[in-house]
Amino acid sequence: MQTPSPETLTIAFQGEPGAYSEQAALEYFGMQAGAALRTLPCESFDDAFAAIEGGTADFGMLPIENSLAGTIHRNYDLMLRHSLYIVGEYHLRVRHCLLALPGVQLEEIKVVHSHPQALAQCESRLRELGVRRVAEADTAGSARLVRERGDRQAAALASARAAQVYQLAILRPDMEDDPSNTTRFLALARQPAEVADPETGDYKTTIVFSLHNRPGALFKALSVFALRDIDLTKLESRPMPPQGVGGQLWEYLFYIDFAGHAQAQACSRALAHLSELAPFLRLLGSYPRHRQSRSA
Amino acid sequence: MQTPSPETLTIAFQGEPGAYSEQAALEYFGMQAGAALRTLPCESFDDAFAAIEGGTADFGMLPIENSLAGTIHRNYDLMLRHSLYIVGEYHLRVRHCLLALPGVQLEEIKVVHSHPQALAQCESRLRELGVRRVAEADTAGSARLVRERGDRQAAALASARAAQVYQLAILRPDMEDDPSNTTRFLALARQPAEVADPETGDYKTTIVFSLHNRPGALFKALSVFALRDIDLTKLESRPMPPQGVGGQLWEYLFYIDFAGHAQAQACSRALAHLSELAPFLRLLGSYPRHRQSRSA
Repeated sequence: MQTPSPETLTIAFQGEPGAYSEQAALEYFGMQAGAALRTLPCESFDDAFAAIEGGTADFGMLPIENSLAGTIHRNYDLMLRHSLYIVGEYHLRVRHCLLALPGVQLEEIKVVHSHPQALAQCESRLRELGVRRVAEADTAGSARLVRERGDRQAAALASARAAQVYQLAILRPDMEDDPSNTTRFLALARQPAEVADPETGDYKTTIVFSLHNRPGALFKALSVFALRDIDLTKLESRPMPPQGVGGQLWEYLFYIDFAGHAQAQACSRALAHLSELAPFLRLLGSYPRHRQSRSA
Repeated sequence: MQTPSPETLTIAFQGEPGAYSEQAALEYFGMQAGAALRTLPCESFDDAFAAIEGGTADFGMLPIENSLAGTIHRNYDLMLRHSLYIVGEYHLRVRHCLLALPGVQLEEIKVVHSHPQALAQCESRLRELGVRRVAEADTAGSARLVRERGDRQAAALASARAAQVYQLAILRPDMEDDPSNTTRFLALARQPAEVADPETGDYKTTIVFSLHNRPGALFKALSVFALRDIDLTKLESRPMPPQGVGGQLWEYLFYIDFAGHAQAQACSRALAHLSELAPFLRLLGSYPRHRQSRSA
């Protein structure tokens, strides 16, 4: 996302209009200069990947990990099955807003609709309000439902973006129990991000690789980074390998984020070194690091 | 879980009767000899931890990672906040069953109720059936709802255990798109598992530790295992540290499973070595490895 063209950019996301992914897409790509934005809602993650790959969308905005729920392995699997690149990352603080029809008072609310996970994440405050909880398929859909029914006793837990989309008022902005609730999103594109200076910029790189099932194999793999003072920012072993990707069954699959650009000399040598040890290695992308990074 | 007493054992789990966690609890503890079982449904994971710690339950059965959805960080966080031990692990294949009132034919079904994640995981087969999908708070609750309403046009996606609990028939047993869908559960107790011979048994150990934020810190930490030929079976960095646990803010937090018992000589020395490097280190438990292990 160095130099977007001045025309309108289409960003694919999974979910309905007003989903947290749409909010992340607008916030992230809105910070990039010079282009008008259009968001493309997709029913599934698969559909979002297909829209980018097929050219219906210029970019995609996909959640990859949440601070409470963990890594969304499904999207890592899809990264392996498609030929897209990670060109950016964005950390969205998930603020569940209590949305209702304009003019409705908090005391009038009897029922709150949302995704079960959002309802669970707002447990304490919902208990204080003494409202009935109703599960819906997603957060944005619950906001749409409050609008469509015109029900003054109903509220939804959803994003601030959903309030805009469905013309609802925000009765309370931060309903979640855990104020650290954050989702990390990846910006995806058909081409790698352009890079001005790989040596000095503040970049992150994401790779995936397999290793033979031998004690010490991971230790050797990590030595290629440690010996070059490259800092790892995320490391995860895949609990169960996605069978059939690449036509083989792996015993181990590892996802690593490290500080630096794959074209920087030290990183480039580390990756060449790693390819000597790893039967499978794929570079998923080098991209500018999120500014207020809170990842471990 | 070496020598359960002959009286009735109470197993806490999160969810309603018929939840996958209850099925896992009955399958796992049912394989242990000599005791009758009683399951204790708990509204939240927190409640389940409290039930074990407070003595209302003898054991707990908590999901820790799913092959599609990833690690359930919430339960790792709760492990840190409580003083319980992991005494066993169990891998449950998540088979979403289509449940309806006895005597109902597949053709009569118009609506399918379930948790949004279960509905998404059965996308293909639900599309074939051409049914309407309705989100509910959990899978077991959707089975209860079909029973309570007595609706012959409604079905639920839930566990085989839910069919028993709510006296429903299984119209189709394997509705999920991905036949590898598996959840790993941990058995928790107030005391560590007894061990007959730590050197020769097939054990696994889970630890959590923090490291200073320096390049190569993780590499050094892993060397304590690699230098002793100890095999790691899971490694995960925590994307955002749980603030306040232990009264300090960590830059990095790592969860590792390794093959072997913490009381075996090599493992015991590796942990002593690791404690020289890690500002914080906690042994969460050593326990018999799941027999048909499919973890990476």
